[in-house]
Amino acid sequence: MPASSPGSWPALRVTYHVTASNQPDLDARVESLLLEQTVELPRSALRDEFVLENIVGRLVSTKTIADEKHAVVLDFPISATANDPAQFLNVLFGNSSIQEHIALVDFKLPAPEKWPQRELALPGPQFGAAGLRQITGIHDRALTSTALKPIGLTTERLALLCGLFASAGIDIIKDDHGLANQSFHPFTERVRACQRAVRDANRASGRQSIYVPNLIGTPSAVLEQLKFAQDEGVCAVMIAPMLLGLPFMAEIVANHALVPIIAHPSFGGATRIAPELLYGKLFPLYGADATIFANFGGRFSYSRETCRKLADALTQPADPGLISTLPVPAGGIKYQNVADVFAFYGTDVILLMGGGLYEAGDDSALYARAVEFVRHVAEFKA
Amino acid sequence: MPASSPGSWPALRVTYHVTASNQPDLDARVESLLLEQTVELPRSALRDEFVLENIVGRLVSTKTIADEKHAVVLDFPISATANDPAQFLNVLFGNSSIQEHIALVDFKLPAPEKWPQRELALPGPQFGAAGLRQITGIHDRALTSTALKPIGLTTERLALLCGLFASAGIDIIKDDHGLANQSFHPFTERVRACQRAVRDANRASGRQSIYVPNLIGTPSAVLEQLKFAQDEGVCAVMIAPMLLGLPFMAEIVANHALVPIIAHPSFGGATRIAPELLYGKLFPLYGADATIFANFGGRFSYSRETCRKLADALTQPADPGLISTLPVPAGGIKYQNVADVFAFYGTDVILLMGGGLYEAGDDSALYARAVEFVRHVAEFKA
Repeated sequence: MPASSPGSWPALRVTYHVTASNQPDLDARVESLLLEQTVELPRSALRDEFVLENIVGRLVSTKTIADEKHAVVLDFPISATANDPAQFLNVLFGNSSIQEHIALVDFKLPAPEKWPQRELALPGPQFGAAGLRQITGIHDRALTSTALKPIGLTTERLALLCGLFASAGIDIIKDDHGLANQSFHPFTERVRACQRAVRDANRASGRQSIYVPNLIGTPSAVLEQLKFAQDEGVCAVMIAPMLLGLPFMAEIVANHALVPIIAHPSFGGATRIAPELLYGKLFPLYGADATIFANFGGRFSYSRETCRKLADALTQPADPGLISTLPVPAGGIKYQNVADVFAFYGTDVILLMGGGLYEAGDDSALYARAVEFVRHVAEFKA
Repeated sequence: MPASSPGSWPALRVTYHVTASNQPDLDARVESLLLEQTVELPRSALRDEFVLENIVGRLVSTKTIADEKHAVVLDFPISATANDPAQFLNVLFGNSSIQEHIALVDFKLPAPEKWPQRELALPGPQFGAAGLRQITGIHDRALTSTALKPIGLTTERLALLCGLFASAGIDIIKDDHGLANQSFHPFTERVRACQRAVRDANRASGRQSIYVPNLIGTPSAVLEQLKFAQDEGVCAVMIAPMLLGLPFMAEIVANHALVPIIAHPSFGGATRIAPELLYGKLFPLYGADATIFANFGGRFSYSRETCRKLADALTQPADPGLISTLPVPAGGIKYQNVADVFAFYGTDVILLMGGGLYEAGDDSALYARAVEFVRHVAEFKA
C-alpha cells in the first residue's frame, strides 16, 4: 500500500506494531486501522468530502521489523480529538486496542504552535522533577522513598512508621497503593496522623521529608480526599491513573491539584482480563444496562466460546443481586448474518449494525436498508 | 503448595490463570499473588497478627489446565476493598495485571448478606435489559440499533441521519463512540438536534425509538453532558468505562444517571500499549510529576531495554512543551542493588524501596536499615 499524501491538517502521528503474514493481509490491516480510529466506517461508505479530506487517517510509512511484524506510522487529524483527554485516547488506541494483532508503540503530538489548545487535553506535569526536588530540598543525589504498608495495620502504627522513616531521613514516604478508606485506617484519620508524624520528624531533623497519601475512589471521593490532604499541608499525592481513568487525572492536574502528582502503575495491564469477565461481569457490576462487545467473526478477535461466556454472564448473572444486562454484539454485523447472530445469542439482545447500513449508498438507499434491517429483525420473535 | 485454611472473613474469590513450568515455580507465583494483591510485602516482613489472619489472601485450589498453565483460585478478604469501586480493582488485579504470567479470568463476590455494603462499591445495572425494553416498548424481538457517524459531519447531517433511522424503525440510535465535543458537531447542539429528530420521527410513527448520546471527557465535563442530555429528555446514554475509569462509571450510576447506561468497549485492551509509552509518555502528558514503574530484574517482567526507553521518555521528553518527570523504578529493589539502579538510571530518580526495608525485622532494625539506605543513596552524588 503506497503512503497517502499528507494531510494539510496538524497531525497526531502514531506508530503501531501490526502482525501480518503477507502483504495483502498487512494492507488490509493498515486500511482498517486508518478507518477504525476516527470514522469507523468502510471507505465505501464515506461520501462526505470534508470527512475524506480532514478526518480519515493517512498512511505515513510501513516498515517490516521482524518476521510477520511491521511498524506502521499513521497520521490522524488532531481536530478529531476535540482537545479532550478521553477522546485523545479514542483516536490513539480506542477500538484498535481490542484487536490482538495491533500494539500501540509510540506517538508524536503536533508542534505546540500547530495545536494551541493542547493543554485542554493534556496538561503535562506541573511540578516535575525540579518541583519535587525543590519541595524535598534534595538537589545533589537521588531522592529516597518507601511505602507505608501493609493494609490492615492501625492508623497509629502507620503514623509511627511514617515518623520512623522520616527520622531515618527518607525523603518521600508514600501510602501503599492499597491504602484506601478501609475501616482499619480511615483516610482522614490516617492523613492527619501521618502528616503530623512527618512534620514532627522534620522539625527535629531540619529535613524536608514528605508524606504522600494515596488518593483512590470515585471522582467525588478523590477530590474530597485531595482537598482534605492539601488542607492538612501534604506536599504531594499519589494516584493510579489506570484505575481512576487518565481523563480524570488530567482534570485533577488542570483544575484541582496544588501539589505534585506521583503516578502509580496499578491496573496498567488491565487487558489481561478475560473479555467475558471485563465486559460480561465487571461492566455490569459497575452499572452497565447494556454492554457493547466485539462479536465473533467480525473485525475483532474474540472466539465464539468467548462470546458465549460473555453473553451468558450478561443475561444470566451468577450474582443474585444483579438484574440482567442486554448484550450488544457489534463490530462488522451485516444484514446477511443477522440470522446467525440470533441463532447464537437468541433475541434478548440489541442488534447493532453500523457500517453494514452505511454501505448501502445515498440517503434513500440507507433508509431502505434500515427499514429492511428492522423488518428482518422482527422476523425473529422472542 | 497445600491450600491454606479458609479465612473466617467474607471473601472475594478470584480465579487467575498462571503460567509456570514446574511446581516450585508455580508455588512461588501463587505465594507472590497471595501477597501482591493486599499486603504487597514478603511474608517474612509480616509481623502483625491481625494482618496475617485478616488481610493476607488464602489459597483455595490450583489445577493444571494445560501445558504450563494453571487455574489458581484465591480468597481475599472483602474488607480490603474498602467498599470502594477503585480499591476493588486493586484487590482484583492491581499490580498483578502488570505481571505477564498472570491473567485474571473470574471472580465471585461474597453472598449479599455477607457483604451488605456492596452497593457502595458496585451499584450494578439500575435498568438492565427489562428497563431498556420498557423504554423502547419492544418486548417480542431483538432491539435494533445503529450509530451516528462518522466524526466530521455537520450537526444538521447527523440529526438528519438520526431522524432517518428513527423513521426506518431502528430502536436505538447511538452516537459513534468517537463523537465528542468536536467543533464540527458540538455536544449540546448535536444532542438537541438529534433528540428533536428522534422525537419528531416518533410522533409520526408512534414508535419509541431513542437517541443515545456518547458522554466523553473528564468527570466534570461528562457530568455536565449527562445533565444536559437528561434535561433534553434523552432516554439512555453511552459511556466507555475503560476510557473514563470504572470507578467513575460506578459514581455516574449510583449518583447521577436517571437513564440506562450503554457501555462501550473502547480502550478495553489498553495493555497492548508499550510500557515505555504508557508510563513514560502518556502518564506525564496527563500530568504526572513522578511516575512509578516496574524496574527490570524485579518481580515484574520489563526488560532493561524497556526500562531504559521508559526512563528516557520521562527525563528527556521529546515533546518541547513538557518539563521532566521523575522516574521511580520500583518493585523488588534491595539494598544490594542500589548501585546497579544508579549505574543504569543515574541519580535523577526517586529510589523506592518497600519490602527491602520491611524485611529488616522489628522497628529498631527497620529504622537502622532505613538510615543505612539513606546514607547509601547519598554516596551517589548527582
